[in-house]
Amino acid sequence: MLEVVILGSGNVGNHLVQRFEKSTDVNVIQWYNRNLPNINSFPKSIIKTNNINNLLEADIYIIAVNDDKIREVSSKLKFNNRLICHTSGSKNLKELSSKNRRAVFYPLQTISKSSDINNIKTPFCIECENKDDTKILEKLCNSIDSKFYNINSKQREKLHLAAVFVNNFTNQMYSIAKEITDENNIDFDILKPLILETANKINTLDPESVQTGPAIRGDFETIKKHINNLTDIKHKSVYKILSSLINKDYEKL
Amino acid sequence: MLEVVILGSGNVGNHLVQRFEKSTDVNVIQWYNRNLPNINSFPKSIIKTNNINNLLEADIYIIAVNDDKIREVSSKLKFNNRLICHTSGSKNLKELSSKNRRAVFYPLQTISKSSDINNIKTPFCIECENKDDTKILEKLCNSIDSKFYNINSKQREKLHLAAVFVNNFTNQMYSIAKEITDENNIDFDILKPLILETANKINTLDPESVQTGPAIRGDFETIKKHINNLTDIKHKSVYKILSSLINKDYEKL
Repeated sequence: MLEVVILGSGNVGNHLVQRFEKSTDVNVIQWYNRNLPNINSFPKSIIKTNNINNLLEADIYIIAVNDDKIREVSSKLKFNNRLICHTSGSKNLKELSSKNRRAVFYPLQTISKSSDINNIKTPFCIECENKDDTKILEKLCNSIDSKFYNINSKQREKLHLAAVFVNNFTNQMYSIAKEITDENNIDFDILKPLILETANKINTLDPESVQTGPAIRGDFETIKKHINNLTDIKHKSVYKILSSLINKDYEKL
Repeated sequence: MLEVVILGSGNVGNHLVQRFEKSTDVNVIQWYNRNLPNINSFPKSIIKTNNINNLLEADIYIIAVNDDKIREVSSKLKFNNRLICHTSGSKNLKELSSKNRRAVFYPLQTISKSSDINNIKTPFCIECENKDDTKILEKLCNSIDSKFYNINSKQREKLHLAAVFVNNFTNQMYSIAKEITDENNIDFDILKPLILETANKINTLDPESVQTGPAIRGDFETIKKHINNLTDIKHKSVYKILSSLINKDYEKL
């Protein structure tokens, strides 16, 4: 049985506590947060504390706090040579204080408190300073039935950037579409099956190979009509630059 | 029982034939295509023809040909006052010859021949010149368990534009992410659960309300790092313009 202490009560901290609670191979023995009321309600079986000097001995300490607090929290820990990890996509492993064995345990998923943990798959990027610790993190992933990938800090920085494209920027595409449907009294729901199928296709096919639409077809008449139909000047720019990425010939226009 | 003639053997024509074949309320009595070999293999029960002068009498003729062939095909029909429809997202109902009762039956989905019709939901946009014909198209949608929406030609043009954002441009976000992971020896598979969850969230939540990431947080340090990490100058432009749409403060930089 792996004994774990979680630090932080944001989306990731909450998600991990819930996940580990369902596992028979992991025991969350303590949950730390600066503000006790944020964690006091759930789950009752876990010891809560707001005193960082009072942490129990555990196999692993997961620091799931804001990126800019990782350094501070890790340096406040009163022990040495234990396994500590942060959960950030963009921070280097070295953000953690070197007095402990450092690692990264980054869940590559969009996690909110309302996420249904039973229906969401979360792969983990793991990185360890000491090779032996890798096994502990792998065991942690296996205990909650999650895939893991060995990703070093340099790769993780790039991966986080790629995640911004498939999550934040894709979501912005949905927002622009919703603005267009709202403006024209069209129920946005009509687009939902298309949104889902667009994502589903990527499970088995390469995105470049499944591209469709006016840009890849070189249908410049429709492209012109679309750009004229957009009312927001930035949306026009987005349309133009993405079309030119899809079809290099578009630039010749 | 609705009797239907399908014209065209592209992705939409094929998809409709397969859907209707599974329905007990619709009978595809004939399938027309200029090139017979494209349709001769499947399904055997349907009469095939490559002679447009030889079409059987039916309740509805579905013209599922390329956008720029709709006018030509509809004007070649040798009968009058029957219900004919096209399946295009971007063409006006008036693209069809006026000698027949005109309608639009546009499936709002990304359909390829490899699509699994059992696992794909396809809503239809319907538009009829004569109100009475609406019932026939509604019956057609019900017969294959598909939702329908009454969308006029002007709205359909805007909807098609919105579809480009949630399909083609979203897919381009996936392509850019794949370029980044490939360049850095990261398995693209790691991003697939995030891609799916980003799409799933929209089923119940407004895209604007679920936005996360450095831009919405105003984390300009990470934004700068990301832009420096991008090697393609157009990808940098995409990053900047989408970040400025997510967070208006970004422009002040």
